[in-house]
Amino acid sequence: MSNDNRNAGAALLADPAEVDRTTEALAHALDETAIARDQRGGHAHEERKLLRDSGLLKLTIPREHGGLGHPYALFFKGLRRLAQVDSALAHVYAFHHLQVATVLLYGMPEQHAQFLRPTVDKRLFWGNALNPNDKRTLATPAGDGGWRIQGPKSYCSGSVGSDMLTFSAWHEPSQALLIAALPSRSAGVTIRSDWDAFGQKQTDSGTVEFNAVHVGDHEVLVRPGTVLSPRATLRAQIAQLILVNLYAGIAQGALAQGLRYTRESSRPFFASGVFRAVDDPYVQQRYGELSVRVRPAEVLADIAAQGLDQALARGDALTAAERGDVAIAVAQAKAVAHHAAIEVSSQIFELTGAGSTTARLGLDRFWRNARVHTLHDPLDYKLRDLGRHALLGEHPAPTSYS
Amino acid sequence: MSNDNRNAGAALLADPAEVDRTTEALAHALDETAIARDQRGGHAHEERKLLRDSGLLKLTIPREHGGLGHPYALFFKGLRRLAQVDSALAHVYAFHHLQVATVLLYGMPEQHAQFLRPTVDKRLFWGNALNPNDKRTLATPAGDGGWRIQGPKSYCSGSVGSDMLTFSAWHEPSQALLIAALPSRSAGVTIRSDWDAFGQKQTDSGTVEFNAVHVGDHEVLVRPGTVLSPRATLRAQIAQLILVNLYAGIAQGALAQGLRYTRESSRPFFASGVFRAVDDPYVQQRYGELSVRVRPAEVLADIAAQGLDQALARGDALTAAERGDVAIAVAQAKAVAHHAAIEVSSQIFELTGAGSTTARLGLDRFWRNARVHTLHDPLDYKLRDLGRHALLGEHPAPTSYS
Amino acid sequence: MSNDNRNAGAALLADPAEVDRTTEALAHALDETAIARDQRGGHAHEERKLLRDSGLLKLTIPREHGGLGHPYALFFKGLRRLAQVDSALAHVYAFHHLQVATVLLYGMPEQHAQFLRPTVDKRLFWGNALNPNDKRTLATPAGDGGWRIQGPKSYCSGSVGSDMLTFSAWHEPSQALLIAALPSRSAGVTIRSDWDAFGQKQTDSGTVEFNAVHVGDHEVLVRPGTVLSPRATLRAQIAQLILVNLYAGIAQGALAQGLRYTRESSRPFFASGVFRAVDDPYVQQRYGELSVRVRPAEVLADIAAQGLDQALARGDALTAAERGDVAIAVAQAKAVAHHAAIEVSSQIFELTGAGSTTARLGLDRFWRNARVHTLHDPLDYKLRDLGRHALLGEHPAPTSYS
Amino acid sequence: MSNDNRNAGAALLADPAEVDRTTEALAHALDETAIARDQRGGHAHEERKLLRDSGLLKLTIPREHGGLGHPYALFFKGLRRLAQVDSALAHVYAFHHLQVATVLLYGMPEQHAQFLRPTVDKRLFWGNALNPNDKRTLATPAGDGGWRIQGPKSYCSGSVGSDMLTFSAWHEPSQALLIAALPSRSAGVTIRSDWDAFGQKQTDSGTVEFNAVHVGDHEVLVRPGTVLSPRATLRAQIAQLILVNLYAGIAQGALAQGLRYTRESSRPFFASGVFRAVDDPYVQQRYGELSVRVRPAEVLADIAAQGLDQALARGDALTAAERGDVAIAVAQAKAVAHHAAIEVSSQIFELTGAGSTTARLGLDRFWRNARVHTLHDPLDYKLRDLGRHALLGEHPAPTSYS
Repeated sequence: MSNDNRNAGAALLADPAEVDRTTEALAHALDETAIARDQRGGHAHEERKLLRDSGLLKLTIPREHGGLGHPYALFFKGLRRLAQVDSALAHVYAFHHLQVATVLLYGMPEQHAQFLRPTVDKRLFWGNALNPNDKRTLATPAGDGGWRIQGPKSYCSGSVGSDMLTFSAWHEPSQALLIAALPSRSAGVTIRSDWDAFGQKQTDSGTVEFNAVHVGDHEVLVRPGTVLSPRATLRAQIAQLILVNLYAGIAQGALAQGLRYTRESSRPFFASGVFRAVDDPYVQQRYGELSVRVRPAEVLADIAAQGLDQALARGDALTAAERGDVAIAVAQAKAVAHHAAIEVSSQIFELTGAGSTTARLGLDRFWRNARVHTLHDPLDYKLRDLGRHALLGEHPAPTSYS
Repeated sequence: MSNDNRNAGAALLADPAEVDRTTEALAHALDETAIARDQRGGHAHEERKLLRDSGLLKLTIPREHGGLGHPYALFFKGLRRLAQVDSALAHVYAFHHLQVATVLLYGMPEQHAQFLRPTVDKRLFWGNALNPNDKRTLATPAGDGGWRIQGPKSYCSGSVGSDMLTFSAWHEPSQALLIAALPSRSAGVTIRSDWDAFGQKQTDSGTVEFNAVHVGDHEVLVRPGTVLSPRATLRAQIAQLILVNLYAGIAQGALAQGLRYTRESSRPFFASGVFRAVDDPYVQQRYGELSVRVRPAEVLADIAAQGLDQALARGDALTAAERGDVAIAVAQAKAVAHHAAIEVSSQIFELTGAGSTTARLGLDRFWRNARVHTLHDPLDYKLRDLGRHALLGEHPAPTSYS
Repeated sequence: MSNDNRNAGAALLADPAEVDRTTEALAHALDETAIARDQRGGHAHEERKLLRDSGLLKLTIPREHGGLGHPYALFFKGLRRLAQVDSALAHVYAFHHLQVATVLLYGMPEQHAQFLRPTVDKRLFWGNALNPNDKRTLATPAGDGGWRIQGPKSYCSGSVGSDMLTFSAWHEPSQALLIAALPSRSAGVTIRSDWDAFGQKQTDSGTVEFNAVHVGDHEVLVRPGTVLSPRATLRAQIAQLILVNLYAGIAQGALAQGLRYTRESSRPFFASGVFRAVDDPYVQQRYGELSVRVRPAEVLADIAAQGLDQALARGDALTAAERGDVAIAVAQAKAVAHHAAIEVSSQIFELTGAGSTTARLGLDRFWRNARVHTLHDPLDYKLRDLGRHALLGEHPAPTSYS
Repeated sequence: MSNDNRNAGAALLADPAEVDRTTEALAHALDETAIARDQRGGHAHEERKLLRDSGLLKLTIPREHGGLGHPYALFFKGLRRLAQVDSALAHVYAFHHLQVATVLLYGMPEQHAQFLRPTVDKRLFWGNALNPNDKRTLATPAGDGGWRIQGPKSYCSGSVGSDMLTFSAWHEPSQALLIAALPSRSAGVTIRSDWDAFGQKQTDSGTVEFNAVHVGDHEVLVRPGTVLSPRATLRAQIAQLILVNLYAGIAQGALAQGLRYTRESSRPFFASGVFRAVDDPYVQQRYGELSVRVRPAEVLADIAAQGLDQALARGDALTAAERGDVAIAVAQAKAVAHHAAIEVSSQIFELTGAGSTTARLGLDRFWRNARVHTLHDPLDYKLRDLGRHALLGEHPAPTSYS
């Protein structure tokens, strides 16, 4: 694609309907190779290129920095569509946008321009090295106002093949995290492709090794001990809502593929008395049950996204309570989407039958992807947060997970 | 309340916010006596008067006939609020509006004026004698263009104490139903107060006996064998959506009362290590689980109501497929609300504890009400309809239940 | 019944088959009035007389004290049968035997004879005033080796109408309980019939008021601070296994009555295409689901009872670990029976339909009884105990509930 | 192992305790390579040799034919143990015994000796080509009292690497199956290793091609149209009970591995406030929940096995009703074990956390194995059979699946 075409594409993408069409085309392209890539694992070079070429990497970047400036609701709807066919690439795509949000929410206005303008112009892909639980990555002052970063960071989604990274490092003296951004190919940074989970295989969730990496003051988004505003802490809600939409998309995708198999390939049970599996009364009833597990996940995800957009629109006026209401809506959506993904991806098989278990079809990938991804943070603590809110009116304390 | 006040009230009720306030006041009034009336059962004369005085009986009557002409979405939201505290009276209130809808959807334009103008002016309360499964009520032509109605009709919600009735009668020769409306105190009509279920006690769901009742041609809404338009068959969806909102309201009410009891009265289990029941980790988690059973019911009910209003706005242009999409949205909401009502009303007790089972509190009424009301039509056939739609793209055939 | 007949009955009851027949006859007798008594509540004088006359009050009393000396497995099987038709009277019956067990497990050999011989000879009915959580009942030394008891005790099952009571009282200085037995009509003892739950209405679970009651040294079963042997702490397991069998019996009874109603009275749904409700494919499937909720409860209850009998047979050689294995088997049975009772008693209605909700049938009593009774102690702590055992190999600490 | 050793082993295996020890040793051996073999798939030559060498292939062969003659209850318990670590090899082992049962139940006494004596002496391994739903395998009379078999047969578990096969072939004229046994290496028999499911990979469930295969009259176990005795139809119950124990074993194995990972490797969630994952209150509670899903599966499997042994001991006196009672007990066990396997193998991950999803550990194999294997025949028809029995007292009609 020439630069001209790209600019034309970018102009078109100002229209949400064109975003939907582009997303749809992307979904179709990913779908064609999804089964093979699930079996192979590893880095999806070609498909990341498709993402890059689509122009959607600038979807959430404000217009003032050359982006499309669309609301998150549009982003999340598209994310769900991609997750229906390939929740690993959808995750890589989503985590790019999460890092963009990290710059926007944590960074100073001048940093927005500094990081996001090149992201648009050079079509940069962001990855993540932010895992707050891995405190082996240490930050020490460098003397020049900058910092020296040392040590590994695990579970870095999208890091392999990225151009830019956001990362966190532990500052021992203040017992707090430093958060910064830097080019992935900076001196001292090594990205190891060591992710080997049985699902979400192509999320490029490697380990990033920092070896005497120098970070300049202008690259630091959050100095250790900085108290974040309610608005800044919305970052965790964007992260959680990414998970919600990945789960919801997996549930939708599993249901769609289950229905398709039953429609096209399942044979009726001999005792059913019907000639087509689709006419079996139990098959119909059970698909009805599954459909009402998926539908609430979609709807609650949409509502939570609208709440997020409204909260962001409040700017710095956003109160802790308003931020807390977003967190509750996201938590509700997450609990429902989590269960939908796990249950639907497993239960479709009762309705597709033995023939659908051939490895060639890879119909188990939905469960494997859901199972791996839903372990990001424990559901019971999300339920606890919801219960506390219902009982005591307390909002979840802002953390990396809530 | 003087006529002047009433007119003032009516003027105010043109504002949806005032409808909400009036509903809220009504809910508080019903709540005060709900436990005692649940124990007593029978006809709630005073509370039906409150409903009448509220002005809300004309909520869904078009403005051209003197009503408020509000959308169904507003009606359903208010219904849910009432059902939180008294799902029996809420049902009586809702069935008044269902009969208004029956006149509007089944009747000719001149019948709208004929029936609804007096409903507004004389503040008439409508009841129901439409149960299509009770074919003991027979219709035979009267020779004068009118009909002679004979036989009993069971499960007539809101009939006791009503001013007007819609009813169905079986026409043997055409094997089809006649549907008509007439004053409850017409000659030959006897209403027996014989409803004795263990829940929804004050729904006035008696038996209506027709003894040589004459119905004039102008009172007939549907002649036997008439083919209804897709729009007319939306009546069944209004009926189903009433159930949805009653179930969702019961679930909300049960959860609210459970939370309140746990907050105010429950004692922590000795092994919990906490001093307040609200701090028990399991109590918090389980309330989180219950809250994500209730929330989807609310949301899907709202979405279905919006779909209904849009479909009604399409007028006679409404296609069978568009009508079918409303039916699917309603069925989804119904399945979810059904489970929410039954599960939440039973499971709150795990979290309120033994003290909450005192008959004085009547906390079991939510389950009893939900249990009785959810048996209106079997859930498995609703799930089957949803499954058929997912599998085959077929919409539910329009019937009294779908 | 003359004394001679009674002795003849006693002789026959040495045969387990005769115990089963007597239990069956008792169940039939209780069943005849169960619905009416559930509606009425209060003390079941006549039915307690039936229990007394049956000879089954001495079922678990050792032969050396004139009893039948049957194993607990036989007692629990019979208890479940009674609970199928009347879980309130079954509870009263069971709690008599629990107090007999209290004497046997806590008391000295001479106390066994002192308390149990008259129980057999005079056909005494024992009630319970042991609630360990109600520490308003205080024990102070009386100077003569006896104790003075003062204050109320709540939730005293079977106390109303009892001849003998076991009770606990709080000894402030040692922060421990004294446990003793005394005649219900002792000076200073007042039994108030103030139980008013919405289920398990006839359990006679009143409040016992102790007003300067004197208890002799020979009546004291456990002095404050006494360390109980593993064998003595099996009392809590007998109490829990009583609950298990009441829950399992309620589940069985609800299923049986649901099946009967569907078979005899339910009408098929118009859309089912069948002429009898029993032929509806969903009705068949759902009853299959319910049956596999009930069956495990029965089986695990039986296994736990066998384990209890074996543990008791070990006498004082019983180790803490062996006692712990009984506790685990009982906890497993309890979790399963708890869910079975609550779910089955609620879900049968989906299959019996609207007609089954008439108050006349009282089919809701199974859920009300299950709901009230399952709140004895919180299920989540039972699950926690099971999880700790699975994870860590730890047995539940012996308490009044585990 | 020398022949002498083997004979000594055989003598020892007459003792059930020695069978248990041998099974345990086998389980340990299979466990060592289970993860690697799950990844690799294909034929497990070495492990089938272990099964052969263990002497357990003659476990269910009557003593009069040189076998061990143990009851099925012992066989099933051992099967469950093997399935805990390797449900694919356990299936191959079980299907050997199913074919032995096929000979015993379908064959004439002289065929028992003819087929089973060499099975013992030459340590033959039996596979299965009996799939009754694949009617492409045709039988035509050969003129000499024998038959000519032509066509493929799919889903032939254990066929690859087998010495003997039982098979079914469709006889068009009588619209019924012929069932016979023959050596796997007979002329015209080709076994294709084309099984490629995502679970149960090493079950050797290939396709058997019959090309003009001649079967002698003495090899025919069931002539087309033969009416089987109730006892003979117990074969289907043995087949179903094999599935039950495989499912129960998978559930046990998944739970055990989940517990082990949580104990040894899981990290507590930062918000839990505990230092070890095993101390997290939610982790404990959820493992308690899982343990009471697994326990009923074990217990009901044992009870069904006892019923089967008793029914077999009745010989030809076995009535259809007695056979039906076995079928009900097996169906109950199957429904419970099915759910246990699917749920537990998926839910353990909530408690082991993200680290447990590394492909290296293969912890997803339990779900994959359960998912593939539970699709043998649809659960809803099993539930329907149970419901019919509960409602109508009808036993399931004897088929290949019931």
